[in-house]
Amino acid sequence: MTATDPLLGLLDERRERHLAELFDLLRIPSVSTDPLRAGDVRRAATFLRDDLTRNGFEAELIETGGHPAVFAERRVAPDARTVLIYGHYDVQPADPLPAWTSDPFEPVIRDGAIVARGASDDKGQAFAHVKGAEALLAADGELPLNVKFLIEGEEEIGSRNLAATVRANRDKLSADVVVVSDGAMLPGKVPTLTYGLKGLVYVELRVRTAARDLHSGAFGGGVPNAAQALATILAALKDDRGRVTVPGFYDDVTEIGDEESAQLARVPFDEGEFAHGIGVTATPGEEGRGLLERLWARPTLDVNGIGGGFQGDGSKTVIPAEAFAKISCRLVPNQDVERVTAALEAHLVALAPAGADVEVIRHAGGSWAISPLDGPAVKAAAQAIRSVDGRDPVFVRSGGTIPIVAEFQRQLGAEVVLVDMGLEDDRIHSPNEKFEVELFHRGVHLSAELLRSLGRG
Amino acid sequence: MTATDPLLGLLDERRERHLAELFDLLRIPSVSTDPLRAGDVRRAATFLRDDLTRNGFEAELIETGGHPAVFAERRVAPDARTVLIYGHYDVQPADPLPAWTSDPFEPVIRDGAIVARGASDDKGQAFAHVKGAEALLAADGELPLNVKFLIEGEEEIGSRNLAATVRANRDKLSADVVVVSDGAMLPGKVPTLTYGLKGLVYVELRVRTAARDLHSGAFGGGVPNAAQALATILAALKDDRGRVTVPGFYDDVTEIGDEESAQLARVPFDEGEFAHGIGVTATPGEEGRGLLERLWARPTLDVNGIGGGFQGDGSKTVIPAEAFAKISCRLVPNQDVERVTAALEAHLVALAPAGADVEVIRHAGGSWAISPLDGPAVKAAAQAIRSVDGRDPVFVRSGGTIPIVAEFQRQLGAEVVLVDMGLEDDRIHSPNEKFEVELFHRGVHLSAELLRSLGRG
Repeated sequence: MTATDPLLGLLDERRERHLAELFDLLRIPSVSTDPLRAGDVRRAATFLRDDLTRNGFEAELIETGGHPAVFAERRVAPDARTVLIYGHYDVQPADPLPAWTSDPFEPVIRDGAIVARGASDDKGQAFAHVKGAEALLAADGELPLNVKFLIEGEEEIGSRNLAATVRANRDKLSADVVVVSDGAMLPGKVPTLTYGLKGLVYVELRVRTAARDLHSGAFGGGVPNAAQALATILAALKDDRGRVTVPGFYDDVTEIGDEESAQLARVPFDEGEFAHGIGVTATPGEEGRGLLERLWARPTLDVNGIGGGFQGDGSKTVIPAEAFAKISCRLVPNQDVERVTAALEAHLVALAPAGADVEVIRHAGGSWAISPLDGPAVKAAAQAIRSVDGRDPVFVRSGGTIPIVAEFQRQLGAEVVLVDMGLEDDRIHSPNEKFEVELFHRGVHLSAELLRSLGRG
Repeated sequence: MTATDPLLGLLDERRERHLAELFDLLRIPSVSTDPLRAGDVRRAATFLRDDLTRNGFEAELIETGGHPAVFAERRVAPDARTVLIYGHYDVQPADPLPAWTSDPFEPVIRDGAIVARGASDDKGQAFAHVKGAEALLAADGELPLNVKFLIEGEEEIGSRNLAATVRANRDKLSADVVVVSDGAMLPGKVPTLTYGLKGLVYVELRVRTAARDLHSGAFGGGVPNAAQALATILAALKDDRGRVTVPGFYDDVTEIGDEESAQLARVPFDEGEFAHGIGVTATPGEEGRGLLERLWARPTLDVNGIGGGFQGDGSKTVIPAEAFAKISCRLVPNQDVERVTAALEAHLVALAPAGADVEVIRHAGGSWAISPLDGPAVKAAAQAIRSVDGRDPVFVRSGGTIPIVAEFQRQLGAEVVLVDMGLEDDRIHSPNEKFEVELFHRGVHLSAELLRSLGRG
C-alpha cells in the first residue's frame, strides 16, 4: 500500500507467471453442458485444486452428483473472520466456432486482451482471486483472515447442484463475507461494487381455447381465440401508470432510503446514452420512479416470449387453439418468491376471458440478495478499490439474479459483495470472449487488497 | 325426373365407368406446389381436356404463366343462357405419407368411400360436373343451355394466376351463372346451397422496440418490451362488447333482412353440438348477434398467429426486441377490402405504445361475394336439389373466402352459387382424404339436374 509494500514488487515479478497459469486453465475446454467434455470439466477442477494445494491451501473436490466443486481453505486462526470466494471454472460452449478469430481453447493476446472462452466468464476472474491470495500469502507471510474458495463447475448449466451442496456443507463453507467476481464494471472501467441483486419469478402461461386450430372462415366470430385471449391477459398485467397489477405485488417492497437515493444520484449514468446504446426510443416504466431506481430497486414484470398459431411466412387463416407466454418478475427486498409466484398465478387465472382455459407452469426462481451499504463487507471492498484504483467505487445494485448469492446469504448468514472485474463488452457467451490483460492483473491486486481490508474489518 | 326419365337409366348404367374414369384422374399426382410434379399437373389438365373433347365440348388449355387452366364450352344457341362451372384439378401434397393407409395416388374404395388425394378436393366434385354434363347430353340429345368449364391447376397455391386469366379472357368466360363445387354440405348430409362468402383482409403486424433482445435483469423496468407492446395493441382491437374497434369498421356493413333472418332460423344448427365438436367452452363474439349471424353475415377479426422472444423449453430471461402478429378480418357486403385494410393499418399504428415502432405488411386479400336468394341461380340450384334429394336445401352463407368467386361476380357479372358435394369429415388437406361413392354419383346426377334447371330458368 505504500511504496515499500512488498506485495507490489511481487505482483510485478509474477505477472508473466500468473498469465501463463491462467492460459493453462483456459486451455482446458471445461464446457459443462457437453457430456463429452465431462473429463475436461473434471480436469479443470483438478487443475485448480492442485494449484491451491501447491500454494498453501487445503484443497479438495466436493462431489455434487454432477460436475465437482473445488473447495479450498486456509485457516489462520479459529476465531479469525472468514471470507468465502465464490466463482466457477466451467464455461459456455464455443459455438459458433467459425465466428472465432482464433481457437477458443488456445488463448492469445490481441489488442491488449486475453481472447479465449472463459477468459472473463469466469476463469479469469476466479483465478485472479486464486493468484491474489497466493501473492498476498507470499508477500505478507500469512493471510490476514481465514480464506475459503468455492469454485463450482455447473454455473453455466444453472448451478443445479450448488444449493444442495451449500446446504450439505454449511459448516465447511461457513463465512462472514462472500465475495463474487463474475460480472462487469460500469462502462468506462468505473470501479464498481454491487451490493444488491434482484430475485426472479419465471412462469409460463398456456392458454387453450379449442380442441384444435380452427379455420377462421368457418369459425371466425363464433369461437374464442387463444392468441387474442393471451394478448388480453398480458395487456392487463400492467396499468396505465406502468405498475404491475398482480394484487399485493408491491406490499412487501422496501423503499430505498435517503442514503441509497444519494448513492443513485452519484452513479455516472446518462439516460440518453443508455437508450442510444440499445436502440430504444423510450424508457417506459413505473410512473414517478427514476430510471436507475426502476432498474435496480423496483420490482418489474416482463413478457419474455410469446407464441401461438401460424408463425410462418405469408398467411394462414387459422384461429389458434393454443398460445403461450413466458412471463417473469424481478423481485426486490422484501418480496417473497413463493408469495409473488402464487399471486401471479392466481392473477393470470383470474384474467382469463370466457372460453380460455389457462395453465401456469413454474420455471426458474430465486431470491434477491442485499448487503448493507454501511456493513463491513461493502466497506472493506470499497477500501480495497480505493487502494488499487486510487478512486472511490460506484455502489450499484443489479437487476439481475444470482440465486446462489441469496442462498449464501440465507444458509451461511454471510454478507455478500460483488466485485466485478470484467467489462460489458467482454463478449461472454459469444465468440471471441476476452478479458483485458491489465484488468486481470488489476483483479489479482484487488483480490489481495480485499483480503487485507477484510482482515482489518 | 319422372320414372321414364332416360337420364336415370343412363346414370345407372354408367356408374362403374364414371368411377373408373375418376380413378384415372386421381392416379395423376397433380400436386401444384411441387415443382417436380409440374409434368403431372399438366397431364391432369390434358386428361380433362381430352375427356371433355371426347364428350362434345370444345376444350383447350389456357396457359397462365403457371399451371394451365382447362377451358371447355358447348354452345347450344347464341342467345341461350350460359353457365360456367368452376373447379380445380390440382391437389394438396400427400404428406405425411406414413399416415395414409393406402397409396394417396392409387384410389381404393374403403367403407363406401373413395380414398385418394383429391377425391373430394376437388377432382371428385369437379369431375362430377364433367360427367353430369356428359350424361345429360347423351340422355337428352343436347344440353339445355350453353355450358362452360373452367378447371384450374393452381387453387392449392392461391389461384395466383387465375384473376389475371379471368380478366384476360372475359369474353370467352362470360356467363350468367357460375357454379362452384369445392366444399362440404352441412353435417348430416343436409343438401346445402351457399349463396354468400365473406371477404378477407390479412396483414402482419411487426413491432420493434430495441436494436436487439435485452437481458431482463439488466434492463427490466427501463425499456419497452415488444411482446408486451404487441399484446397491448392486440387486446385493444376489440371492445368489451366483442366489437372490432377499427374506426369505421362497421360503416358499410349491410344488415341481414327479414328473409335472410328467416332462412337463418331454418338452418339445422345446434349451438351445443357446434361447441362440443370443436372443444370450445364458450362462443364469444359481437354482443347482441346470434351465432350463425356472426359466423356468416357479420365482419370479424382474428389474430391468426403471434410470435416473439424466447419460445423454447424452460426459461430465458430476455426482453424481446421484436414481436409479430398475423391479423385477419372477414368482410361482408358492402365492406371494401382496400378501405378496411387502410383503416386497420392506421388503427394498428395509432395503438402502438411509446417506444414501439410498428410496421404493417399486407398479405392475402379478397372480396366477399353474394347472390340474391331469390335470383335465378339460387332458385335453379334449389330446384335441382329437390329433384335429386327429394327435399329442400338449406340456404347458407359461408364465413370463408374464395377470392376468385368475387372476381367472377365482378368481371363476368355472373350470379354465383356454391353447390357443395363433399362432407366436413372428408379429410381434405389431410391423410386419407375421401369422398363417399354415393355422394360422387349424387354429384353427377345433381350436376345434370342443375343444368336442366338453369336451362329452364
